[in-house]
Amino acid sequence: MQKHYLLTPGPTPIPPEVALKEALPILHHRTNEFGTIYKDVVEGLKYVFQTKNEVYLLAASGTGSMEMAIANLLSPDDEIIVASCGNFGDRWIKIAQSYGVNVISTSVEWGKVVNPAEIEKALKENPNVKAVYTTFTETSTGVVNDIKKIGEVVAKTNAVLVVDAISGLAGQEFRTDDWKIDVVVSGSQKGFMLAPGLAFISFSEKAWKLTEASKLPKFYFDIKKYKKSYATNETPFTPPVTLIVALQESIRLIKERGIENMWNDYKLLAKAARSAMKALGLELFGEVPCEVVTSACVPTEIGGKIVKTLREKYGVSIAGGQGNLKGKIIRFAHMGYIGKADLLVGFACLEMTLAELGFNVEKGKAVAAAEAALLDS
Amino acid sequence: MQKHYLLTPGPTPIPPEVALKEALPILHHRTNEFGTIYKDVVEGLKYVFQTKNEVYLLAASGTGSMEMAIANLLSPDDEIIVASCGNFGDRWIKIAQSYGVNVISTSVEWGKVVNPAEIEKALKENPNVKAVYTTFTETSTGVVNDIKKIGEVVAKTNAVLVVDAISGLAGQEFRTDDWKIDVVVSGSQKGFMLAPGLAFISFSEKAWKLTEASKLPKFYFDIKKYKKSYATNETPFTPPVTLIVALQESIRLIKERGIENMWNDYKLLAKAARSAMKALGLELFGEVPCEVVTSACVPTEIGGKIVKTLREKYGVSIAGGQGNLKGKIIRFAHMGYIGKADLLVGFACLEMTLAELGFNVEKGKAVAAAEAALLDS
Repeated sequence: MQKHYLLTPGPTPIPPEVALKEALPILHHRTNEFGTIYKDVVEGLKYVFQTKNEVYLLAASGTGSMEMAIANLLSPDDEIIVASCGNFGDRWIKIAQSYGVNVISTSVEWGKVVNPAEIEKALKENPNVKAVYTTFTETSTGVVNDIKKIGEVVAKTNAVLVVDAISGLAGQEFRTDDWKIDVVVSGSQKGFMLAPGLAFISFSEKAWKLTEASKLPKFYFDIKKYKKSYATNETPFTPPVTLIVALQESIRLIKERGIENMWNDYKLLAKAARSAMKALGLELFGEVPCEVVTSACVPTEIGGKIVKTLREKYGVSIAGGQGNLKGKIIRFAHMGYIGKADLLVGFACLEMTLAELGFNVEKGKAVAAAEAALLDS
Repeated sequence: MQKHYLLTPGPTPIPPEVALKEALPILHHRTNEFGTIYKDVVEGLKYVFQTKNEVYLLAASGTGSMEMAIANLLSPDDEIIVASCGNFGDRWIKIAQSYGVNVISTSVEWGKVVNPAEIEKALKENPNVKAVYTTFTETSTGVVNDIKKIGEVVAKTNAVLVVDAISGLAGQEFRTDDWKIDVVVSGSQKGFMLAPGLAFISFSEKAWKLTEASKLPKFYFDIKKYKKSYATNETPFTPPVTLIVALQESIRLIKERGIENMWNDYKLLAKAARSAMKALGLELFGEVPCEVVTSACVPTEIGGKIVKTLREKYGVSIAGGQGNLKGKIIRFAHMGYIGKADLLVGFACLEMTLAELGFNVEKGKAVAAAEAALLDS
């Protein structure tokens, strides 16, 4: 009977009208009926991605679409630049190295944002670089990178720009075409308000040219297979039908609200979350905080216990730090189907949790700060 | 308002009690609550696989688990034997060739079953072969291979046996350990009565040894990552939570019925389906018919229209032929959540469809034959 409040950066809560679509009788995937849904979903994805490029769907975690963006663009011993600022950025390096690709790193310390000038310098010094890989919102630390600026830098070269927008898409301003991003990968379980299991990838013309020369082995992740099936509103392998049917509903909700309104909604939630953290006396973590998750430093003596206590006593799930940040930060998500009231629930329970763990906290203060920020919009 | 009757070899219908689990509020995947479900599901999978080996889950179509079985066992230029008898067997060849693996084929014409003696001969002639890849029930043609016999042959050598049991598992007698199968791959959308999007793979000790030498590149499909997370009831990447929660329910249903009873249930349905096809004057296709799908030859002049007419006029989905068999056979599934009454619905509508298409059919005869077979149990 524990009631759950999910304030984690993925999976995020699913609106009931979306969740119920998952329970509808299943359709066969090689039918006109499913094809119509698939086509509608693809158009919706293009809207959320803000792109005219095709967007492909596959059954995989977000990491699967990241691997797709490595395996289809490169050959062994190719050079790439990875600009990482956290755990998910580092994943680009690990995938590339698994495939024998040479990584030139312009990575920065976790908590910082990547430096477009460093990428520019690395591109000049390494004219053979095939692609630059980076992250939009890095949820492991809670920062957002200046993808628009990076897009300007990379577009002037022969390299393509690949961005992991798994957590930020539909949560914070992101414009694939205007920002000149060649490949964007994303997943279902964050801003799309859906269960995990579906991944997305968009490919520009410039990126398609690279696929012609790519010699890395691939089969399930071979994007040419997806492009071929796309022409008939199909996927090369049996797709996760129920998730795609549910995605149509969540895209309908996104369109109804309007993507720019959604960006503004989360911007406000982010402002309120930052105010609440400060009111608790917790220092914000991250050079440029993103608008889908708020990270704050916590005293290391209670750092490991906050997430556990919140979940076990109140059913509230937030996230702790990853890697070296374990026990040092907490991460409070405001993406997808998380609203104002959820934020207040989260901070009220966080106040009680901190008090229980012996942290000096003035009860109600974080909630008051969040309320003030929310009312100030 | 079109009512759908799914009699296709995947996706198959989903029991409402399973489908509704997909709609439950989503759990976070790094919690004890999800861990408990995950552990229960894994135990259930072991029961269905009839194995003591560990069974791993991943977000992917079944093909993803096939690729996992290539990428983790082999290195470039390794030699393998593929014994294919249809479209899905041929997929082993395509995946292996994508990775630069040398394939020795003991494949047979579509419709035949693979020959254990040929595999034995090929193993003797090629002592460096690392693995033998084959298919349990080949749904593209409707036959079942003698995996038990192949297991005896391969177990005597250093090679490992890898079996695609995507469509046959939970539908027809299959015993991973007793039949000495090292690697078994499967998926959620057939005998497991679940939506597509989840794939499974089991690994024997003998197979684990091969993974140590494997040099093919992999990241998302790297089974060592899955093994590591398995120890704490987790997956390396965000799993398809709603599908796993629903899988717990479908496994509960399978256990309640008992796996051997299920095998017998489908055996009876297969018998009835064969009787019905014969009563229609349609010749059965396939050297050794499997018990999860029944294939029959149809007159080529109407072959392409049967599936379309059945679906559009009556909402009944069956499958046609693939590849060279397109327009030449129909495939009628009796796997997963397909029962006696569904079979009768399917054949009654097939009778009407054939009559409409100008085929000389005695109305009611196929249904009568199916009824007789069902009553004869």
